[in-house]
Amino acid sequence: MATIADIAVSGAINLLTAFIFLLAFAILRLQPFNDRVYFPKWYLKGLRSSPSRSGAFVRRVVNLDFRSYIRFLNWMPEALKMPEPELIDHAGLDSAVYLRIYLMGLKIFVPITFLAWAILVPVNYTNNALEAVKMVANVTASDIDKLSISNIPLKSQRFWTHIVMAYAFTFWTCYVLLREYEKVASMRLQFLSSERRRPDQFTVLVRNVPPDPDESVSELVEHFFLVNHPDHYLTQQVVCNANKLASLVKIKKKMKNWLDYYHLKFSRNQLQRPQMKTGFLGLWGGKVDAIDHHDSVIEKLSKEIEEERKRVLKDPKSIMPAAFVSFKTRWGAAVCAQTQQSRNPTLWLTEWAPEPRDVYWQNLAIPYVALTVRRLIIGVAFFFLTFFFMIPIASVQALASIEGIEKRAPFLKSVIEIKFIKSVIQGFLPGIALKLFLIFLPTILMIMSKFEGFISLSSLERRSATRYYIFLIINVFLGSILTGAAFEQLNSFIKQSANEIPKTIGVAVPMKATFFITYIMVDGWAGIAGEVLMLKPLVLYHLKNFFLVKTEKDREEAMNPGSLGFHTGEPRIQLYFLLGLVYSTVTPVLLPFIIIFFAFAFVVFRHQIINVYHQEYESGAAFWPDVHGRVITALVISQLALMGLMSTKEAAQSTPFLIALPVLTIWFHRFCNGRHKSAFVKYPLQEAMMKDTLERARDPNFNLKAYLQSAYVHPVFKGDNEYDEDDEDSLLSGKMETESVLVPTKRQSRRNTPVPSKMSGGSSPSLPEEVKIGEP
Amino acid sequence: MATIADIAVSGAINLLTAFIFLLAFAILRLQPFNDRVYFPKWYLKGLRSSPSRSGAFVRRVVNLDFRSYIRFLNWMPEALKMPEPELIDHAGLDSAVYLRIYLMGLKIFVPITFLAWAILVPVNYTNNALEAVKMVANVTASDIDKLSISNIPLKSQRFWTHIVMAYAFTFWTCYVLLREYEKVASMRLQFLSSERRRPDQFTVLVRNVPPDPDESVSELVEHFFLVNHPDHYLTQQVVCNANKLASLVKIKKKMKNWLDYYHLKFSRNQLQRPQMKTGFLGLWGGKVDAIDHHDSVIEKLSKEIEEERKRVLKDPKSIMPAAFVSFKTRWGAAVCAQTQQSRNPTLWLTEWAPEPRDVYWQNLAIPYVALTVRRLIIGVAFFFLTFFFMIPIASVQALASIEGIEKRAPFLKSVIEIKFIKSVIQGFLPGIALKLFLIFLPTILMIMSKFEGFISLSSLERRSATRYYIFLIINVFLGSILTGAAFEQLNSFIKQSANEIPKTIGVAVPMKATFFITYIMVDGWAGIAGEVLMLKPLVLYHLKNFFLVKTEKDREEAMNPGSLGFHTGEPRIQLYFLLGLVYSTVTPVLLPFIIIFFAFAFVVFRHQIINVYHQEYESGAAFWPDVHGRVITALVISQLALMGLMSTKEAAQSTPFLIALPVLTIWFHRFCNGRHKSAFVKYPLQEAMMKDTLERARDPNFNLKAYLQSAYVHPVFKGDNEYDEDDEDSLLSGKMETESVLVPTKRQSRRNTPVPSKMSGGSSPSLPEEVKIGEP
Repeated sequence: MATIADIAVSGAINLLTAFIFLLAFAILRLQPFNDRVYFPKWYLKGLRSSPSRSGAFVRRVVNLDFRSYIRFLNWMPEALKMPEPELIDHAGLDSAVYLRIYLMGLKIFVPITFLAWAILVPVNYTNNALEAVKMVANVTASDIDKLSISNIPLKSQRFWTHIVMAYAFTFWTCYVLLREYEKVASMRLQFLSSERRRPDQFTVLVRNVPPDPDESVSELVEHFFLVNHPDHYLTQQVVCNANKLASLVKIKKKMKNWLDYYHLKFSRNQLQRPQMKTGFLGLWGGKVDAIDHHDSVIEKLSKEIEEERKRVLKDPKSIMPAAFVSFKTRWGAAVCAQTQQSRNPTLWLTEWAPEPRDVYWQNLAIPYVALTVRRLIIGVAFFFLTFFFMIPIASVQALASIEGIEKRAPFLKSVIEIKFIKSVIQGFLPGIALKLFLIFLPTILMIMSKFEGFISLSSLERRSATRYYIFLIINVFLGSILTGAAFEQLNSFIKQSANEIPKTIGVAVPMKATFFITYIMVDGWAGIAGEVLMLKPLVLYHLKNFFLVKTEKDREEAMNPGSLGFHTGEPRIQLYFLLGLVYSTVTPVLLPFIIIFFAFAFVVFRHQIINVYHQEYESGAAFWPDVHGRVITALVISQLALMGLMSTKEAAQSTPFLIALPVLTIWFHRFCNGRHKSAFVKYPLQEAMMKDTLERARDPNFNLKAYLQSAYVHPVFKGDNEYDEDDEDSLLSGKMETESVLVPTKRQSRRNTPVPSKMSGGSSPSLPEEVKIGEP
Repeated sequence: MATIADIAVSGAINLLTAFIFLLAFAILRLQPFNDRVYFPKWYLKGLRSSPSRSGAFVRRVVNLDFRSYIRFLNWMPEALKMPEPELIDHAGLDSAVYLRIYLMGLKIFVPITFLAWAILVPVNYTNNALEAVKMVANVTASDIDKLSISNIPLKSQRFWTHIVMAYAFTFWTCYVLLREYEKVASMRLQFLSSERRRPDQFTVLVRNVPPDPDESVSELVEHFFLVNHPDHYLTQQVVCNANKLASLVKIKKKMKNWLDYYHLKFSRNQLQRPQMKTGFLGLWGGKVDAIDHHDSVIEKLSKEIEEERKRVLKDPKSIMPAAFVSFKTRWGAAVCAQTQQSRNPTLWLTEWAPEPRDVYWQNLAIPYVALTVRRLIIGVAFFFLTFFFMIPIASVQALASIEGIEKRAPFLKSVIEIKFIKSVIQGFLPGIALKLFLIFLPTILMIMSKFEGFISLSSLERRSATRYYIFLIINVFLGSILTGAAFEQLNSFIKQSANEIPKTIGVAVPMKATFFITYIMVDGWAGIAGEVLMLKPLVLYHLKNFFLVKTEKDREEAMNPGSLGFHTGEPRIQLYFLLGLVYSTVTPVLLPFIIIFFAFAFVVFRHQIINVYHQEYESGAAFWPDVHGRVITALVISQLALMGLMSTKEAAQSTPFLIALPVLTIWFHRFCNGRHKSAFVKYPLQEAMMKDTLERARDPNFNLKAYLQSAYVHPVFKGDNEYDEDDEDSLLSGKMETESVLVPTKRQSRRNTPVPSKMSGGSSPSLPEEVKIGEP
């Protein structure tokens, strides 16, 4: 076990790493040529423009204003300056509430840490059980263990302190959870009610429209809702299967891009019209005039698209049995979304339409029975993924060993036997299989969720996050504590009795404290500092910029701001909650490390959300019940582990006192959900009616039908419009819609430079970024 | 272990008992003086009248028509004759669907039994593992065990038969369950849509109306719904706390009864006005004229009632924050019942109003937080009741022993020492504590459900049934299999590993087959025959009739038809499902006994439902999802037990094949619930709209407001009207309402005798009852 000195060394290394990352970030972010990497959000919102066409070349690339380097940690207070309401305006409620998770971590653990250090640490330290053990069995105990529960002798009356503390910590955690649930629920309701008119407030997604021999889906939907919601029905939009069309549009877009590139080239060098080869990747084939060739290809594609578009809109086979139905009032939509329409509960399924950005179009047409079967398959698959993922990896590792390669590919033998390559294979390859799996795990989980048939990106991410959390608990938390592959643990758990399991975990928990402290420093400190540096997007952006970017549009796309990534980020935060709660009574030394993580991550992610991440959708913090539920899970695990530990400490009389804790905690969870969950899944009629009345008074002549007509058009129709402003043949104008989706920001009015359009390339002088971005 | 001969003896005894019961029933039911005991339902519906005032005295008491005795089992085919639709008309959907549970038992177990006897029994019998064991260990094995799985040697390949059969049985059971779920769901929807206009179709119960300093509850409710459901709101009825009023009305009713009695007495003997003493129970005190005395008392009570009624209606303290809100259309009510009204999900809680008969008035005013706390308390209490109920009983038993009594009450010593009394105490008292507990258990569970705050009788019964089922599984099924008090089992289960538990159960299951066969014969055969004899109501009725009945009204009330008693009956049936499924693969010999139970009970309960039970409420078979869920539970238990048994038989390779069964079963359960449960909890808008439209076309000028005005008046206001037809001062006329509640029957039109009114005493000739009742 590590001593305090070991921890200190490790801490120093990690702090240094973090510091270097931060320093690198501070320097890199000030360079104008990195501007699109570190401030992409402002570009995407059209509030900042590329500095590439104005000023001296050097000033465009390197920041020579040395004053700006002095205050190199300035971004931290700046990130904290923006008040929450403005943050919600700027980055959406999802992001703002996501940050509250870190804040909640601080709220929970700061008082717990103080209490634990004030009471538990002295109680633990003034014993000498470990000294006694050392004398007898020559076991080495570290200094850290002296501060932990391990230092208390068996059957000691001092364990009462830990029990009382467990109650205090539980009550405090529950109190904070309840307050946060309340706060987030009211923020959500506030957000929903203060929102401007949005298509999804009036729209309901209807799935599993039954087939009818006499009527088309569109007519059927219209008739059904005219009959059953006569006073409220307004219009509907059937869902088309437009996958082929989407791919055609994608090709056309690429071609237009090349055309732009050649036009650019031609305009620079008027002497020679650019030429190209028609073959694969332009490597061989006959030479043709590039501009003419692309013109003709685009024309051909346009025709094809036109035909395909007509086919999609007319061919009954491409119409899916689903529709977006819009209502005259929010009240009507709220009623329809929350009631059952027909006798058969698997037909005419209605639910709130997700935000247009949030729709996952591919899954709209899965019938009910297929859905339940898919759910079963994914359930079983996830079980095997969680418990048996080590088996394929172990076999890959066996393959990737020297012997494995030599056996399968004897001709490589001479290469492998070279000492350097051999050591690489031995030291590197076995690990890489596992590493690759862990990197791709969130993607795998996402694919599973997609297969399961969720219809919005937000619900896909929520489900993936739940699965990832379970995976982390079993394979990282329990895996680290108990050491051994998950299926071995499963096997031993099945063979153990119900009250042995907490004991097994409880005994192992204090022994792993130093390991987890190191883990927190590596993953939670240096890792977060790495997040703000954004090394991967930085390198990728510059590579793309150098090799691929042909036009301004390309540069726009090379910018990869990424998004919050709820499905990977949130489960990782939850791991810290779990560690903090489990160790709060056992090894309080760990708590300050957790606090530093939460505080540091809060600042970093606030900065990233303000300046970098691009919001993919807005779910209105619909994920909070999941967050709440996982902290409760962590709390229950910590209570069970403590119970197990206590019973091995022969403080058996403690069990009745401790057993009440999980019961109360679970009851508390149900109480909270009963009290607040409905704010996240239902839409009260009172609210709807209030907004309807207000709006009718404010804007009595608004043409809602025109507004909603094309709100839920398949993105391929809209996407086409977005890129082909000159294309007059677009059947459906998605223009208005895409504008309405853009979240506005107050910043717009504060900027003193005129807002440059996305396409104009921008010519505003590039002020030092700090001044631009940082104003509160 | 019992041999086949033992079982045969036991079977003969039980068959004889059942036969005697049936014979006694056949004779007793034909006697006119028992008519009100065996055919109360017809009296309650006003389709049959007392035979006591017509014909010769003897004929009034004894049936002298000997022909009717010959066909003494005639009631069985008669009970089966009434077709299901007519049964639904006659006794309600609840009763008809309740009978389907028995029918489902037959549908599940008849094919399983044939299959098991055709395949499993030969497979088991043609082994000689038991013979081998007998030789070695001198264990006695019965003939029955030869037919069971115990007769197959370890590691035999024959176990594959059992695995395949387990799959076959599971699939068959699931198939029947699915079909029944479908059928019952469609019956329910059919029932709801074919029903006549009923107040609960238009009415929603609103609870937790927030307090308002400026408005009364009534005004507040009216305003809230006028604002939020402007097009649909019709009227509302606040709930009053009328418990004091109810008790006053009860006293008045009793007094009026006495007055009737004295009037009757006076009319028979005109010479002497009846006198009475004013003291306790009329035993002492001054003598007064009974008629005058009662007249004055009733007058005084009437005034008090009047005042109390005014107080209740005016005093804001007696107004509970709950109301029945009625809508203009079923559509409006369906919308309101199924949506959330206000931001705060614990205020303005709306749900479908139960049928007026079904309302449990006391619980209407419990606030949300109290509800969740109550739920927690009851959850914990039920846990202790289930696992530790033996502790208080054991202590009572210790008290009730000879030594205990002598110790506490030495003065009784001389009495106790008498040999007869001593033997009574020793043999009888210890058992009586347990017996009393078991008799009162359903009542205890009902009180727990009431405390938990359910607002309708049907939901109270459903919750009690669930609890009773859990209690039966743990204390009867597991208790019999594992022997030992529940808390000892709990203790041993906690200490056992997860895969040991099924083994422990699995090993014990085949050994207890003979015990359960006996149990089925005693409880399922003789017990059911006892049910049809109705010994307790018979005795009680005649006792009451002899000692207490003073007037016709009293006789009406002495008749105690009882009701179906879902909360006790259904869990008991479920125990048979559990036994049948668990033993289907293990000891198929048990199956025919189960079949006989289901068939016999079906006939008996069909007879009882047609002729005896009084329907307390109509929930429209809302209990079916519970029934379905419990059969699924039984199925999973049977699969786990088989898995445990197999692994002790060292057929370990079977586990992967068997583990898929519970997974599939649970998935099937979720599928079924997703597919059909909504029919039991939701009301599709399409249906509502259809009925509304139909009704508007058929009866456009119906005054719905007047119809609904007093539908949900507290029963004390209605009750008063029912008994005081002459009372003109009734504030609220519940008259129309009580009539509308009576379920009509087609029988009415088929009867050739004129329908006598309830009060007229009836003068139609008393034909032999068979002719009257039995016509199909």
